[in-house]
Parts: sequence; C-alpha cells; structure tokens
Amino acid sequence: MKINGTPYRSVWVNEKDGWSIHIFDQTRLPFSLDILRLTTQQEVAQAIITMQVRGAPLIGAVAAYGLALALRQDAGDAAMESNAAMLAATRPTAVNLHWAIDRMLKALRPVAPQERVAAAYAEAGRICDEDAAQNEAIGRHGLELIRELAKNRPAGTPVNLLTHCNAGWIATVDWGTALAPIYMAHDEGLNVHVWVDETRPRNQGAALTAWELGSHGVPHTVIADNAGGHLMQHGQVDLVIVGTDRVTRTGDVANKIGTYLKALAAQDNAVPFWVALPSTTIDWSVANGVTEIPIEERSASEITHVAGRGEDGVQTRVQITPDGSRAANPAFDVTPARLVTGLITERGCCPATEAGLRSLFPEQQG
Amino acid sequence: MKINGTPYRSVWVNEKDGWSIHIFDQTRLPFSLDILRLTTQQEVAQAIITMQVRGAPLIGAVAAYGLALALRQDAGDAAMESNAAMLAATRPTAVNLHWAIDRMLKALRPVAPQERVAAAYAEAGRICDEDAAQNEAIGRHGLELIRELAKNRPAGTPVNLLTHCNAGWIATVDWGTALAPIYMAHDEGLNVHVWVDETRPRNQGAALTAWELGSHGVPHTVIADNAGGHLMQHGQVDLVIVGTDRVTRTGDVANKIGTYLKALAAQDNAVPFWVALPSTTIDWSVANGVTEIPIEERSASEITHVAGRGEDGVQTRVQITPDGSRAANPAFDVTPARLVTGLITERGCCPATEAGLRSLFPEQQG
Repeated sequence: MKINGTPYRSVWVNEKDGWSIHIFDQTRLPFSLDILRLTTQQEVAQAIITMQVRGAPLIGAVAAYGLALALRQDAGDAAMESNAAMLAATRPTAVNLHWAIDRMLKALRPVAPQERVAAAYAEAGRICDEDAAQNEAIGRHGLELIRELAKNRPAGTPVNLLTHCNAGWIATVDWGTALAPIYMAHDEGLNVHVWVDETRPRNQGAALTAWELGSHGVPHTVIADNAGGHLMQHGQVDLVIVGTDRVTRTGDVANKIGTYLKALAAQDNAVPFWVALPSTTIDWSVANGVTEIPIEERSASEITHVAGRGEDGVQTRVQITPDGSRAANPAFDVTPARLVTGLITERGCCPATEAGLRSLFPEQQG
Repeated sequence: MKINGTPYRSVWVNEKDGWSIHIFDQTRLPFSLDILRLTTQQEVAQAIITMQVRGAPLIGAVAAYGLALALRQDAGDAAMESNAAMLAATRPTAVNLHWAIDRMLKALRPVAPQERVAAAYAEAGRICDEDAAQNEAIGRHGLELIRELAKNRPAGTPVNLLTHCNAGWIATVDWGTALAPIYMAHDEGLNVHVWVDETRPRNQGAALTAWELGSHGVPHTVIADNAGGHLMQHGQVDLVIVGTDRVTRTGDVANKIGTYLKALAAQDNAVPFWVALPSTTIDWSVANGVTEIPIEERSASEITHVAGRGEDGVQTRVQITPDGSRAANPAFDVTPARLVTGLITERGCCPATEAGLRSLFPEQQG
C-alpha cells in the first residue's frame, strides 16, 4: 500500500546488501515513520517482543527472515532447530508465527547446510508474496459484503464499518486482512466510513489503523473501546470486521482483547460480525478456543501507562494509575463461533463452523 | 470516608467563613490531592463542566450549593430561576442534577428573598446528609449480596467484583453507591478483590476508583476496559456492581460509556450484574432508556489525548491519534433492563423492572 504516494510493504530485504531486513518501527507510529534495519535473529526477536513489528501475519513473515538471518551465522541442524524454537517463543498467541517457522523448517531440513541461507531467503520471500496475494483475495471476497450493504443506500449515506485493533496492511505484508475489503471499497468509490476502536492498552487502533486509513484517505473516526455498543444500539454500525490471531477449526476467534465484547454487542443489535483471516491463521488442532488457546499476559506497565506524543512534540508516556495499584493485562480474548456471522478467507466466505471451514479447505485432514 | 486516616466528605462548607464551598479537584487525582474553594455560581458551573467534580450524586449536591452561592449575589425570583436553569444545563445526562435543582427551587420559591440564602444552605446541607445516609443504606443492602457470595468459599479465595468508572465516595457526598457495599464488606473482614475498569476516555476507574480503593486498603487490580469479558469467560468475576447517572422507571440504566458491554458479557457468562443507586437517580418520566435518554457528546480531545503524570512527575497529557483523525466521544450508554440482575437502592434490592421499582417506591404516581 502507499504512504504519501510511495508504495511499500511492511517487511522487505535491503536492496543493496541483499540480506538485511527492513521494517517500520510500529511503536513510533503515527508520529514518526522510522524504518529499521535488522541484521541478526536477536534483533528480529527483540522487534517482535517489543512490538516494533506486530500483527499475526507480519510476525510470521518477519520471523521467517529472522531464521534466514540466524542461518547466516550457523546453518547447522542443531542451531537451526534451536533458533527456530527461540523465534517461535517470542509471542505465544499468534498461530501464524508457528506456521511460518514450521514451514521454514520443513523447507530447510532437507537442504544441505551450505545452501540453507539462500533457500531460507527464497522461502521467506514466498511467504511474503503469498501473504500479500492471500490478503488481496480476502479483500475481494470481503468487498462483496460492503457492496451489498452499499446497494440502495440513499446518496450521502455511508456504509459504517467498525474495526478493533489493527488488521491493516502494516499488520500483514500488504493489504491487511480486515482492512483490505475497506481499502478496495473506498478505491472503487463506495462511500465508506470506519469507526476505529482505539484498542487499549496499546492503542493500535488509535495509532495504527487511524494512521493507515488517514494515509489512504479513508474517512474514519476514532472512538473509545467503550463506545461501540452504544453506536450499534443507535444504528450507526452496519458491519463489524476484525482480524484474528488464531481461529480454531470450529470457528472460535482469538483476537485482541475486547473483540469478544464487540461481538456480543453486534449480536445484541443484529449487526453482522465478520472476521478476516488468511488460512494460515486457522489452528486445525484446536476445537475449543476459550479453554484451549493460551492467552498472552503482557506487562502491567501497558495498563498503568499510556504512550503518545507529549505537548513538547516528543514521544513519551504518562502514568494513569495511582502508585501502588496493581494492573493485569491479558492481551487477547476468544470470541465464541456462535457470535461470528462468518469468516472471510482467501478462498471465500464461510460460516464460523467446522463444516464451513472444511468446505473451503477440504484438503485438511479431520 | 477516610484519606490516610482523616475523614472527609466530597463537598463541604468552609468552617471559617460559613459560606464558601470546598471540593477536591478530581482532575488532579490520583497524583495530587488539591482542595478547591468555590465562591460563585460560575465557579461551581465551571467545576462541573470541567469535571473537577463529577459523579451523578455529587454533581447534584454541589449544584445545590452553587444555587446558594448565586442567591448571595441576587436572591430575587428571576435571577434564582435563570441561575437554576444555568446550573441544570451543565451536564445533560445526570438526573440527580435536575432533581437537586428542582428540590432547591421548590424549597426556596415560597421563601422571602431576604431569607433565601440561609434556606438554600440549609436545604443543600440536607441534600448532602441525605445522600450520605442513602449511600450508607445502599451499602448495607449490597453487602448482603457479597456476604452471600463469600459463604462457603474456600479459605484464601476472594470474592471477585468488577466495577466500571467511579461510583465511589468521591462520586457522592460520602460512601459511594457501587463501592459502598465493597467498603463495608472489606471493613467487616470479607476477602474481596475488585477488578477496576480503567474507563476510557477519562480513566475515572484507573485514576479515581483505584485511588479510593487503595487509600482504603481494598485489594484491587486495574484492567483495560476491553478485558472484562475475558475475565468473566474464565470465572474470574463473581459479581459486577456499577453506579448509574439515570435509571428509567422500567429499569434501563444510563451509565458511563462501556457499561452496556460489561452487562452483555455478564449475561453471556451468567455473572450477576447489579446497579447501585439512590432513588434520586430514578427518572420516573422515562420508559425507554435507549431512545429517550439524551447522551452527552463530550470533547473529541478526551479521545485524542490521555491525561496522566509525565516522566518528569508533572501532570500532562499525550496525544494518541494521528493529526487529522477525527474522534467521537459519547460519554454514556444505556444498558437495557433485561441485562440487569437487579437494582440496589436505599430501600433495598429489587428487579430492574417497573414493578420492582414501584414495590420499593409505592409513593410514586403511575
């Protein structure tokens, strides 16, 4: 996608040296567009842990390059396996991370050590290209939902969408998942407006989704996470679209904390609630999302403090809780499939059920 | 209630001059305990508008003193009526504000202008005393619910309560509404723990409820507003108690934005959801809260910026949204009565229905 007219992906190999990796420092957005250069697996792991890169699909792609960087140091079997495990452990909830590392290992184990570096860069590149293509396909399928809502609408009446967190192009390699249909709808001239949940505690909605949409020219309004139910009660939301970090084979959806609350409000107000995902996000081994998916508990400091731009223009943070008050910070929740209207995948839309998913992905073993 | 052992109310008349009004500047909490002195109706209105005083019951009490201050300038009928209307317009959602102003006018209209100042202070004082007594009664009735949950609980297992926004003693004259039962439970030695929703955008939970509970020694944990549903899914919430700004005669509950989402999650997980209120909060004229209660839209800057204590120790704010992104800020939502387990009033508990409310308040005309 474009930033001020220049096309970018969210991760790319340095064109001059041919091996170092570039990402945007997403902890600096929306106030500063800083491009980082990563040269070691440790730097990649640190970028994932500190959420300089975040978004389930992008984490997988960057971790794949992280393994390529590790192989430049030691391409032997033992080092490759332990480095892969180290990368996989950086974030517990995102299934794409494990999928990408597994795919890299499957591709690289049969390759002789001296050829592994080149093979790793090639495989990581394929992961990126496939992610971008998958998201473009998700966008086309999701676009149909928005087109349907835009039909027979009085002139000047937008289709009001609501999204939580950031499932846009900077959460993926390109296009995004939840935002891909919205970009396509906007680009073809449909009148769309997006309610952007700020998404405490890290405010990825306020900082990243608002920045993405604004950079692309999509009308949007930032709201507190608390506001979505009220807007739905008053007919101001036509469609909720969110991304996901992991979907069970039964259609349960792990996504950023607070997604479940929006799904409950959508159901209570008969607002369609759709989840956009590449099939790499599906965890076919899990049936019950609420009981089986591990939920990452992140630092209490994300609750006690809020990051932003200070009145002097410098990025800083403020403390919002009293000294001595404890805080808890579960980073994800699970929306039961019964609350999900449907799933938007690269192969089309389906109900959030095992039958629905298997109808699109019949090659998956039962 | 006590701050570091010293008993306070949330509003009081200066003991030396006998007429000026003191409040805590709640925009400075939890980092600084600043006592303000208000000397004119304009200062009172400004304190309400800027939320230096907030909380439906406290707003009513302070506005009553605001009218007393106005009468010191001009105790004539015309000025009294117009000043009362001006005070009533400072916050549109809180019914207590209108109730308190109406009560003052009813008491003062029959009084000769030269006697109105003294009568106004007396009536405002009665409003404060009655609020404190009502909240103490609410606390005793709500305490029964907590005692019931604490029964037969294994040693060391707390009763986990969740509250949204601040309905504590500094939202009232004393005791609080939603927090009154919790203080009483803690004081009688029950093992209670409170999940405190931070309550964006103004973070009254993170700043005020956490400060109140911490000052009183009640164990508590601050969470993002997004987290409550997840905690309920995992059995970590035994009871939700919130306050309210207005309850319809049918039991619909207007409260801080986001309350509705917690009520949905409580219902989905069979967690009891109770609302604590003095009967002055009941609007007997309204039947449908969602369609009839006006919802205050506050400044977008409360969404785009977050106030707190900077790294230099000075209170400041940070911007969290990109320049140019719009924000919307509905300050309240309405929880339909069907999601409310029951109401806790000064006369006891009742179902959130017209019949329930009328059973406690039979003197209300149909």
